[in-house]
Amino acid sequence: MAHRVVIIGGGFGGLEAARTVAKAGRDVDVTLIDKRNFHLFQPLLYQVATGGLATANITTPLRHILERHRNVAVRLGTMIGLDPQTREVVLEDRRLGYDTLILAAGSCPHYFGHPEWAAIAPGLKTIEDAELIRSKIFRAFEEAENTSDAAARSAWMTFVIVGGGPTSVEMAGAMAEIARQTLRGEFRGIQPEDARIVLVEADDRVIGQLSTESSTHAQRALEELGVELALHTRVTALDAQGAELTCDGVTRRLESRTIFWGAGVRASAVGGLVGSSLGIALARGGRLAVDDHCAVPDNPHILVIGDLAEFTQDGTPVPGVAQVAMQQGRYVGELIRARLRGKTHPAFTYRSKGDMATIGKRRAVAEVGKWRLHGRLAWLMWLVLHLMKLVRAESRILVFVQWVWYYFSSSRGARIIGEDVAATGADHPVVAAGPSPATRDAEGGSVPAPDSVPAPCK
Amino acid sequence: MAHRVVIIGGGFGGLEAARTVAKAGRDVDVTLIDKRNFHLFQPLLYQVATGGLATANITTPLRHILERHRNVAVRLGTMIGLDPQTREVVLEDRRLGYDTLILAAGSCPHYFGHPEWAAIAPGLKTIEDAELIRSKIFRAFEEAENTSDAAARSAWMTFVIVGGGPTSVEMAGAMAEIARQTLRGEFRGIQPEDARIVLVEADDRVIGQLSTESSTHAQRALEELGVELALHTRVTALDAQGAELTCDGVTRRLESRTIFWGAGVRASAVGGLVGSSLGIALARGGRLAVDDHCAVPDNPHILVIGDLAEFTQDGTPVPGVAQVAMQQGRYVGELIRARLRGKTHPAFTYRSKGDMATIGKRRAVAEVGKWRLHGRLAWLMWLVLHLMKLVRAESRILVFVQWVWYYFSSSRGARIIGEDVAATGADHPVVAAGPSPATRDAEGGSVPAPDSVPAPCK
Repeated sequence: MAHRVVIIGGGFGGLEAARTVAKAGRDVDVTLIDKRNFHLFQPLLYQVATGGLATANITTPLRHILERHRNVAVRLGTMIGLDPQTREVVLEDRRLGYDTLILAAGSCPHYFGHPEWAAIAPGLKTIEDAELIRSKIFRAFEEAENTSDAAARSAWMTFVIVGGGPTSVEMAGAMAEIARQTLRGEFRGIQPEDARIVLVEADDRVIGQLSTESSTHAQRALEELGVELALHTRVTALDAQGAELTCDGVTRRLESRTIFWGAGVRASAVGGLVGSSLGIALARGGRLAVDDHCAVPDNPHILVIGDLAEFTQDGTPVPGVAQVAMQQGRYVGELIRARLRGKTHPAFTYRSKGDMATIGKRRAVAEVGKWRLHGRLAWLMWLVLHLMKLVRAESRILVFVQWVWYYFSSSRGARIIGEDVAATGADHPVVAAGPSPATRDAEGGSVPAPDSVPAPCK
Repeated sequence: MAHRVVIIGGGFGGLEAARTVAKAGRDVDVTLIDKRNFHLFQPLLYQVATGGLATANITTPLRHILERHRNVAVRLGTMIGLDPQTREVVLEDRRLGYDTLILAAGSCPHYFGHPEWAAIAPGLKTIEDAELIRSKIFRAFEEAENTSDAAARSAWMTFVIVGGGPTSVEMAGAMAEIARQTLRGEFRGIQPEDARIVLVEADDRVIGQLSTESSTHAQRALEELGVELALHTRVTALDAQGAELTCDGVTRRLESRTIFWGAGVRASAVGGLVGSSLGIALARGGRLAVDDHCAVPDNPHILVIGDLAEFTQDGTPVPGVAQVAMQQGRYVGELIRARLRGKTHPAFTYRSKGDMATIGKRRAVAEVGKWRLHGRLAWLMWLVLHLMKLVRAESRILVFVQWVWYYFSSSRGARIIGEDVAATGADHPVVAAGPSPATRDAEGGSVPAPDSVPAPCK
């Protein structure tokens, strides 16, 4: 009988694992479970959130990708439990037996003990997140145009981005271009170029995983686009009317109706499910600690990869990026094939191919090995690499056309405000619970350490 | 002081009116109000609903379209009242004075006295409708793959389209191609090509506005694609589990989990608002009757165009199609300009440029004047005309690429199942109130005549 492999999650890790293990042919019977019917190309999600690309350009149906692998079945479903005794995954409507289980359920935004901030400052993980953020950004300009109140107008035209990682930097650059280029000349009551875009980062530089030289380049590029950098600053309170920023014990309030969260992620709820089923404690941010073969200690048939895994290499955890997930996906696929042949397999080693981030047109930072690239060359490299990595050839053409078009026109064709967000119209979202004066005055409310057992993701 | 023109609605009619009246330059001050920030190219909405095009491909920001008309302001807002005494439109958060008001708020699906059917069988008017229908279609195949119950599988793989107008015919053709071509080979438990697609039409032929010859061609094309035609048949009951179809007094039940409504539309809620403010009775389907100058009788400064208007020409109402709305939009724009110059203007006359519908690849029917085209030539004409009519050049390129790609691969890149629909997972929508046995047994429950004062659209 074929070895039953069940994979939870069709992101970068799960998809790569499915493709690799499928090469074992009739020896394996693979089932990939995902809550969604498509693979999402997350590195370009910020372009959907800023109206530059259509949602469909960065999603690919999982069935379509895996169609030719006849030993792989794709099922729409949500994992709600694990029975390690019978070796079964519990889905909402049935149980599914496995011989090897690969957990690749990813991560979701983490608000460090402030779950109520999720409703105010959405993070960017799903297509619905991206569409919500897109709606909020473009609606803010509409509201600013509609209001006759100067303070309200200013709050609608102030955008706060919490966190200074690559996604936040890319969001900030895109938002600055929206205000200064895309929307220029389209309004009658406001000047969209007056918008303030404030990026808040607790560290003293952005994109901490890069060298300080690259961070400096990225910061200069952001400042050239008119982004205000609030470095060494923490968000100590958030409400629907704005944010409280604390820097060196000094607190100031920034009125803003549009706040984006890019400050942290935690593991998907699958981590908690599995942890309690196996009776093991969760690692940092709800992750599942794994050994050097990506397996849960004492559970060699449960493999965990990508953002859900806590994999330590040379004493430090590997970062939660697509590259790691893909390399681990390929690794566990090969590990299973080696085991089926009765062979041992070396431990997993992450080899970084480099990091990069783009900041608007013609600006990017990239580090590949010892190379540090900035400016146009890095930007071109970013473009080419991201185009190549898109799953479908059709998407590559469509994205290329839109990028070329954008380069020359700055027009963003996908700036749709969703029905729900548009419909709130004059009903300004003052309703979300604002902080009490006591909370607002509290100082030193720095972001607490990530709780080790977070509440499940939505 | 410039003549203040307020336009409600940025569809085909409102947009054309804005562009035309704007030519009066400094003599007019135009404000276009829409609930949404974009113009929607409705003729291709069914391609979004069937995963062939991305939503952003058929939407264009109204601001972007009207950017160069410096005498036109675009405002996001919803009309909630009219004060004919002070000549003011009431929006949610403010009032807006007009000298001439152009009402172009369109229509929405009409369920002929069964508003509860809206939750079961969505119609196709907004991008959210299209995304919901898309989610329902592709989820149905996922559920069929997941279930082990043969009856449930059959119900998931049965799709009912109520109504036989051009949109329904185009939907049916696209759904047949999804089942027979796009999804072929992607499932392990089901054969997608086994899906039943049933089109129900009360008349004895589809696309009643065309000649019987064209209807016959369209019907043959649908049957070649495997669509079942239930002509001369009415839907007499609908619930989340299926539909009751009545033909010549004989009633049968069709188990189906996916039902699409294309049987009728009624005027937008703006019609009712204006009718009660002016103290006039509404016409057929909640429309506002207008005189031969597109004006409300006794209210020459209130012009109504498109689906919201009941305009009678040669004793019959003009149809609710984009062509009429555009011609009326241009007409009222010119009418206002003539009035400003103190001139009289001839009455409006609708001149049909022809009708067409496409049924999958290489099949279409078209009638232009006395010409009747069927098959490949009609299909090519349909493609070229629809490409040309798209507002943005970028969209034309993107749609063209996707059509060429589809022609050769049958792949539908935009088949995204939305989070809400996917999340229902195993929780099959059995909850929506099914009919009581008494209702189900009732016969002769033919669709009642459209009520003259319908409830407001959502």
